[in-house]
Amino acid sequence: MPSILGHNFIAGGRSATGDVTLHSLDAASGEALPYSFVQASEAEVAAAAEAAAAAYPLYRSLSGERRGEFLEAIAAEIDALGDDFVALVCRETALPAARIRGERARTSGQLRLFAQVLRRGDYLGARIDRAQPERQPLPRADIRQCQMALGPVAVFGASNFPLAFSTAGGDSAAALAAGCPVVFKAHSGHMASAECVADAILRAAEKTGMPAGVFNMLYGSVGAWLVRHPAIQAVGFTGSLKGGRALCDLAAARPQPIPVFAEMSSINPVILLPAALKNRGEQIAGELSASVVQGCGQFCTKPGLVIGIQSAEFAVFVRAFAARMADQPPQTMLNAGTLKNYEKGLAALQTHPGIRHLAGQPQQGRQAWPQLFQADVGLLLGGDPLLQEEVFGPTTLLVEVADAAELQLALQALHGQLSASLIAEPADLPQAASLVALLEHKAGRLLLNSYPTGVEVCDAMVHGGPYPATSDARGTSVGSLAIARFLRPVCYQNYPDELLPKALQNANPLGIERLVDGQSTRAPLL
Amino acid sequence: MPSILGHNFIAGGRSATGDVTLHSLDAASGEALPYSFVQASEAEVAAAAEAAAAAYPLYRSLSGERRGEFLEAIAAEIDALGDDFVALVCRETALPAARIRGERARTSGQLRLFAQVLRRGDYLGARIDRAQPERQPLPRADIRQCQMALGPVAVFGASNFPLAFSTAGGDSAAALAAGCPVVFKAHSGHMASAECVADAILRAAEKTGMPAGVFNMLYGSVGAWLVRHPAIQAVGFTGSLKGGRALCDLAAARPQPIPVFAEMSSINPVILLPAALKNRGEQIAGELSASVVQGCGQFCTKPGLVIGIQSAEFAVFVRAFAARMADQPPQTMLNAGTLKNYEKGLAALQTHPGIRHLAGQPQQGRQAWPQLFQADVGLLLGGDPLLQEEVFGPTTLLVEVADAAELQLALQALHGQLSASLIAEPADLPQAASLVALLEHKAGRLLLNSYPTGVEVCDAMVHGGPYPATSDARGTSVGSLAIARFLRPVCYQNYPDELLPKALQNANPLGIERLVDGQSTRAPLL
Repeated sequence: MPSILGHNFIAGGRSATGDVTLHSLDAASGEALPYSFVQASEAEVAAAAEAAAAAYPLYRSLSGERRGEFLEAIAAEIDALGDDFVALVCRETALPAARIRGERARTSGQLRLFAQVLRRGDYLGARIDRAQPERQPLPRADIRQCQMALGPVAVFGASNFPLAFSTAGGDSAAALAAGCPVVFKAHSGHMASAECVADAILRAAEKTGMPAGVFNMLYGSVGAWLVRHPAIQAVGFTGSLKGGRALCDLAAARPQPIPVFAEMSSINPVILLPAALKNRGEQIAGELSASVVQGCGQFCTKPGLVIGIQSAEFAVFVRAFAARMADQPPQTMLNAGTLKNYEKGLAALQTHPGIRHLAGQPQQGRQAWPQLFQADVGLLLGGDPLLQEEVFGPTTLLVEVADAAELQLALQALHGQLSASLIAEPADLPQAASLVALLEHKAGRLLLNSYPTGVEVCDAMVHGGPYPATSDARGTSVGSLAIARFLRPVCYQNYPDELLPKALQNANPLGIERLVDGQSTRAPLL
Repeated sequence: MPSILGHNFIAGGRSATGDVTLHSLDAASGEALPYSFVQASEAEVAAAAEAAAAAYPLYRSLSGERRGEFLEAIAAEIDALGDDFVALVCRETALPAARIRGERARTSGQLRLFAQVLRRGDYLGARIDRAQPERQPLPRADIRQCQMALGPVAVFGASNFPLAFSTAGGDSAAALAAGCPVVFKAHSGHMASAECVADAILRAAEKTGMPAGVFNMLYGSVGAWLVRHPAIQAVGFTGSLKGGRALCDLAAARPQPIPVFAEMSSINPVILLPAALKNRGEQIAGELSASVVQGCGQFCTKPGLVIGIQSAEFAVFVRAFAARMADQPPQTMLNAGTLKNYEKGLAALQTHPGIRHLAGQPQQGRQAWPQLFQADVGLLLGGDPLLQEEVFGPTTLLVEVADAAELQLALQALHGQLSASLIAEPADLPQAASLVALLEHKAGRLLLNSYPTGVEVCDAMVHGGPYPATSDARGTSVGSLAIARFLRPVCYQNYPDELLPKALQNANPLGIERLVDGQSTRAPLL
């Protein structure tokens, strides 16, 4: 197993002045692993934020090419983390090795995607309005705009993605790509894994000559200190609604409020249309149950609500789906706390008078048993909060609506979502059109004949959506647009070429697409 | 004078169920004008927000071409508001007729700029990642992303721009362009002017077939009700730090927090470099004093802090500048409250032991007398809050620094700004380069040998900046990028052409620039 020091990462060095010791656990057995970690003190949190602030002026002014080399070097270091690393992550999270290897590739892949974005240069949003000295009644000055890094960013590791949404995960990659140094709070569920990845980042920073403080990592319950620190200029978070909202409230109450992008709570409705159920109900039951239990239901995009229209086909589907769900084996969850929350969530569903249990072994033991429930549509229409709450784990809830009109009402009752999926045949599409307009208001990502688990990392992905799916529907935490959360526009009036950023210089030395006098062009200015 | 009903504008009709009556005043005399207005009741605020919500599904789904026609129709109606309208605005604001005519042209001009943006289509941010069914280990689905309207937007009228930042001003134009219906809170200082403009908007809405509720307007102190209403999805505000922060706090405390773009407080530092003072100190004194007193100093971008380096040239400049400021005539402010605040601001400066009064007649009477003060640099370096506070009106503060190093420290001590200006000759530019990197952190707009008053409405303008200049440095409230504040991304996975927005259809029927598989292109997809 890798050697683990357990000290905080500050300004390129290691620090452990605190007096609280934390332990990493084997997720399957609950036993302590032979690794201990020293929770950061308030002074260490401040030192990390200040290290990030000290790195910021140099780091943000590096060329996109240089930052891209850094991201690619991190990717190479992460790809090189070997089988002992994979085994360690598996022990800390109970996730299978194949998943961890896949997540490793996804993590390095998204770092490389951001490196491409940096070379492409469209994130710079370059706009040039040239001077019009002869304009009447007043001349126009030369004005040029581009995007620059917001400042040091605090990133919170997610429990359920020890690699892809943790240390060098999506939020860190987006912030580093933007030119923002990062202070990362390691998740308590995989601190040893985090240390290995942080070491990889520091090796990459050294190889590519990045400033000390470009990446810092803290252990322990230090989130409030971090978000309150005046040097921090934005926050990225993936986790619970309660945790995310608490950070939003802290950030909004600062003397200088800062933006928080928190990805929090979504039940990801899947709507089953009649012709699809008629033609391939059995197949849908198989696919949907696989999506619900994938990764033990521990995905932000797990389908937590399945809606169908009352019909013989839907009744057949419900039986097939219940049979599939009953067949699913139990799985080990990420940690004991997650299992406990799952049990609480199930208990709330089981004791609700309007909700019936359709399938699943009684929940017991150290693993999570998949479950299927059915709720009266009246609960959804009446605003019952239980139907809007994400239960993290391998369970989902069926709702039967009377007809297409009630389906509209049921969807209108939903809170904001990360995703909304339609399962439909061509014969269903006329009905689908009116649903799409409604689902666009509710979710960041709309799927047709796909299931929401499995979030592609690409330019067009939106992993975001209206509250409470996230704290700000204007962002995404997956895909290359995630960089926009950590950028702000600056404009230059009447500046000579030599004082302008390269993105805005006459010759267009970066060769990027620019909006010049309202026209998109790569041409240099004469 | 125009006929004024004084009722709230809700869902295309007029409503006055409240029991608080407000009066419009002649700004110069303080006398009541023959217009009364009925403050909206809480129920009317709700009705306006719900009217906007009812209009939203249709309005946001109209083509950019249709929304552009609406904006252009508003522009034409505003251009047609005649001399009696100009006279009315002058009476309510004490601003001169030439300024109001200019502002009318600016207001219609920015509506037309947004119509161009809608036709250009780059605000849609179209991104397409095509399916890769053969990809290993997993196929990639077809994923397409574009921007859509956030929902109903609450806009607060600004005291100092009765047209360009009020009823049909920048925030309303940006929201309407984005596809967001607007609920506008009229400023108490120019309610009759607001009614004329709201009438113009409603005529344009009718002519172009817009849904009732696309634009609503309320009178009175109804901001808190409006921001708290669940239908409202974003807020645009221009005004004081206290008022803007209060709205931010309300918005952040909602069950569903919403974004607020508040443009609040900036002292717009102007830095005078040595060679410029040596070559044209007298000219700078004239230009700078003109900028300080323009519009009676009632611009968000008024230079409120002037910094120079100790030298014989700076001493000469200070004398020339003081002489110019002493020569400026008094002007009438927007309203009695503004004058009172100006007097308070002057009193705080006058009684501060570290601040000296250099020029200006004793403040008295109904007009604002221009003033010049000088503060010890130690106050800035020591974080004295008085030096960071905007005093709205024709006054500014000089600070002398010992040398280039102290200049850096002084600029580091500044809070966030809308603008920062360097006055420099070619010989100063080597020193300017290091200042630019620092000013980029502090301000949204950097100027060279220009003065910050006079904000061009164009694609490249940034009228924004770090807190407290605004509540979110990632936005601008002037220029075409202002539309981005009111948009959110949505993506479509595996959707057929007929269910996709036009921006994302294979044939590219809008003919817009799209990012397809990482390449920018207008080509249709095969």
